[in-house]
Amino acid sequence: MFTCNKDRVKDKIETFARFGAAGNGGITRLSLSKEAVQARNEFVKRMKALGAAVFTDDLANMYAAVPGLDPLLPGIVMASHLDSVRNGGNYDGVLGVIAAMEVAETIIRDKIPHRRPFTAMVWTNEEGALYPPAMMCSGILCGKFEKAAMLGSKSPGGKTFGEALAASGFAGGKENRLNGKNYAAMLELHIEQGPVLEAKKKQIGVVEGVLGMVNYRISTRGQADHAGTTPMACRKDALLAAADAIKYLHAELDKLDKNLVYTTGELVVHPCVHTVIPDYVEFSLDARHRDPEVMGQVVNAIRRLPKKLDKCAVSFREAWARKTVLFNRDLVTMVEKTAKTLGYSAMKIYSGAGHDAQYAADIMPATMIFVPSKDGHSHCEEEFTSVDDAWRGINVALNTVLAADAAPPGGLSHSPGGQGESRRRGTKTVKIV
Amino acid sequence: MFTCNKDRVKDKIETFARFGAAGNGGITRLSLSKEAVQARNEFVKRMKALGAAVFTDDLANMYAAVPGLDPLLPGIVMASHLDSVRNGGNYDGVLGVIAAMEVAETIIRDKIPHRRPFTAMVWTNEEGALYPPAMMCSGILCGKFEKAAMLGSKSPGGKTFGEALAASGFAGGKENRLNGKNYAAMLELHIEQGPVLEAKKKQIGVVEGVLGMVNYRISTRGQADHAGTTPMACRKDALLAAADAIKYLHAELDKLDKNLVYTTGELVVHPCVHTVIPDYVEFSLDARHRDPEVMGQVVNAIRRLPKKLDKCAVSFREAWARKTVLFNRDLVTMVEKTAKTLGYSAMKIYSGAGHDAQYAADIMPATMIFVPSKDGHSHCEEEFTSVDDAWRGINVALNTVLAADAAPPGGLSHSPGGQGESRRRGTKTVKIV
Repeated sequence: MFTCNKDRVKDKIETFARFGAAGNGGITRLSLSKEAVQARNEFVKRMKALGAAVFTDDLANMYAAVPGLDPLLPGIVMASHLDSVRNGGNYDGVLGVIAAMEVAETIIRDKIPHRRPFTAMVWTNEEGALYPPAMMCSGILCGKFEKAAMLGSKSPGGKTFGEALAASGFAGGKENRLNGKNYAAMLELHIEQGPVLEAKKKQIGVVEGVLGMVNYRISTRGQADHAGTTPMACRKDALLAAADAIKYLHAELDKLDKNLVYTTGELVVHPCVHTVIPDYVEFSLDARHRDPEVMGQVVNAIRRLPKKLDKCAVSFREAWARKTVLFNRDLVTMVEKTAKTLGYSAMKIYSGAGHDAQYAADIMPATMIFVPSKDGHSHCEEEFTSVDDAWRGINVALNTVLAADAAPPGGLSHSPGGQGESRRRGTKTVKIV
Repeated sequence: MFTCNKDRVKDKIETFARFGAAGNGGITRLSLSKEAVQARNEFVKRMKALGAAVFTDDLANMYAAVPGLDPLLPGIVMASHLDSVRNGGNYDGVLGVIAAMEVAETIIRDKIPHRRPFTAMVWTNEEGALYPPAMMCSGILCGKFEKAAMLGSKSPGGKTFGEALAASGFAGGKENRLNGKNYAAMLELHIEQGPVLEAKKKQIGVVEGVLGMVNYRISTRGQADHAGTTPMACRKDALLAAADAIKYLHAELDKLDKNLVYTTGELVVHPCVHTVIPDYVEFSLDARHRDPEVMGQVVNAIRRLPKKLDKCAVSFREAWARKTVLFNRDLVTMVEKTAKTLGYSAMKIYSGAGHDAQYAADIMPATMIFVPSKDGHSHCEEEFTSVDDAWRGINVALNTVLAADAAPPGGLSHSPGGQGESRRRGTKTVKIV
């Protein structure tokens, strides 16, 4: 077993934390922003200094390739992203890029022999925080989204993704795109973004797949009237109805499997004036579970919502659904064995969040490695993973890359992991992260 | 008893409905906007054609004065407003201006003798829809707001009220301001904006006062975490806590007096992303009742809110409160008697909404006349009052003006109506309409 250099890992974390630092310990580094370009330049500079060949594709995805002994063999790629949400942290995405960089650096500096090319890769616009949807560019590469439609995705300020892409200076040739012919395996290291590893005192999450999910939009429609002049008995208060719908859903969904997670994260009130009784409320319901049967129970609970609550009409529609994605069994087993050999405590886990690797799983063998998130926080400035935890995760990545490198051609069968079929309904683009 | 002309009333309603017509039967006529200026010009044109002296004060409040037989006597003024909320209707405010215009026109055309000067007045920026707060200019005139602060009130687009005022061409001399020395009584005709008159089959609302109100801001604070990765048991969901707080308040407040009205009209979720568990929710609670004891019970119910709900911290603060405003008893009696003499069905009523007349009540005898609102709707395009109902209301106004005109000097004592003491707390400007 090889290990990477903990000081270098610490230096990389601290260096990248500067690009987009918001002054509160976190970063705002929206895709293709000035801050994101600073981070990209750092990636390019460091990878070129190691002698890697750096190139980009037409979506500004970046590749830094380290040749192997047999340049004709399909390569191994580690990929993640450098962009963050607004007021995000220093680990989501960037730690996977740092891991890829550190694996390359260790292989090169320690002259570790390997047959296959190794590529450290950066996906463009994973978060979709400025240009929705999330996982946009892996989605385009893996046939989930149409490129033309994505180029037109607009920021709230009215700038399109296509304009930002052209202005970035990072758009390269379409022929450079990642494809299943040139690459044999993909690995993505990521923070767990949840509290499970920490709670179970495990150092490594062996990620078996990504949870299936449904996303519904639920609305209540009442009547806008004056807050001061409308007797209580005459009201159709859409917000009261929404509160009751939320309570109903909690009561029903809490009866289902204990591993189910569901969330109303978005709720918008119309007209949202303190002197007007709300006439319309729309809210999201995001639910995730590995088992399609449980997901079916969730949908049934939504369908059983009363048609009227507090004299308001209640309606719902599916905005998005995806089936559970299973990662490549051979790679999952390699990660598990590697962690064990390194003496790290590990557990199998499903990802509740979406990741580029789940789309990549459709075109090549892929899997992920999770490292613990302090208190389970992510997408916030408190996001934290210790250097020791990061270092251990990168050691697992390094040795899994080398194990995959040693696998015989054809040894990494493309097991049916590609179940990440997504269905989009309605007209609204819904962000999945 | 005199009566005004129904055809003229219809013509005025239809004419003013054109200024800012939004194509759906309602108007958007924000204060000092192009559309509001069109309405102001119509007022000026028509009042000048009648021979009235038209002038404005430093806040662009407009006055059209018709001299009486004794120009030295304090005058009688009818006032309301021409501005609307966004997508408002054709009656709120403008019907009071139309009433004042029609009373003037009837007095002049029918050569009705009167001793006191009669003034038709238009308040600037009653709605505060673009430049908060509502009732801004009556508030300045009656000592509720500082003019300098109000001039700085900004629209969402960043324009100040002061800039809009200067650009309007309607700002006149400060010496022209309405004051208690020059005017003996104020009358404001307004739509009820509620369903009570219609439900009770009454044609006229004799307005005794304006309900006292409190406005609280209530917030729940949890922890933002990823919707896909955070087990249900680990969550601190601020939106679930807000739903529970709203349900708690409804349960408690429904136990109080049946005439209490209370509303959560505004609720904002942070960060309002469907994949993030909300960490902060803030919502309004507006409660109104005539009796200070009931208002005290409301405040006590808010104070009894659990400090923790769903593991989230619950807090509250008073944003605004006003005591019940009582209108001038002599004027209220005059309105009641006049309606009776005219053979109209009438009932005493309190206003749940705020009106400029409640501020004016602090500096002179004042009262209001309500006419029915179809289905109780207001601040929306469906707002409707029939020409017949409007005409009856204006007849009550006309004869009340003449009754007040005939009152001996000192006969309109300034009874203690001026209880409209407002308290403002915190830093946020809260709109009262």
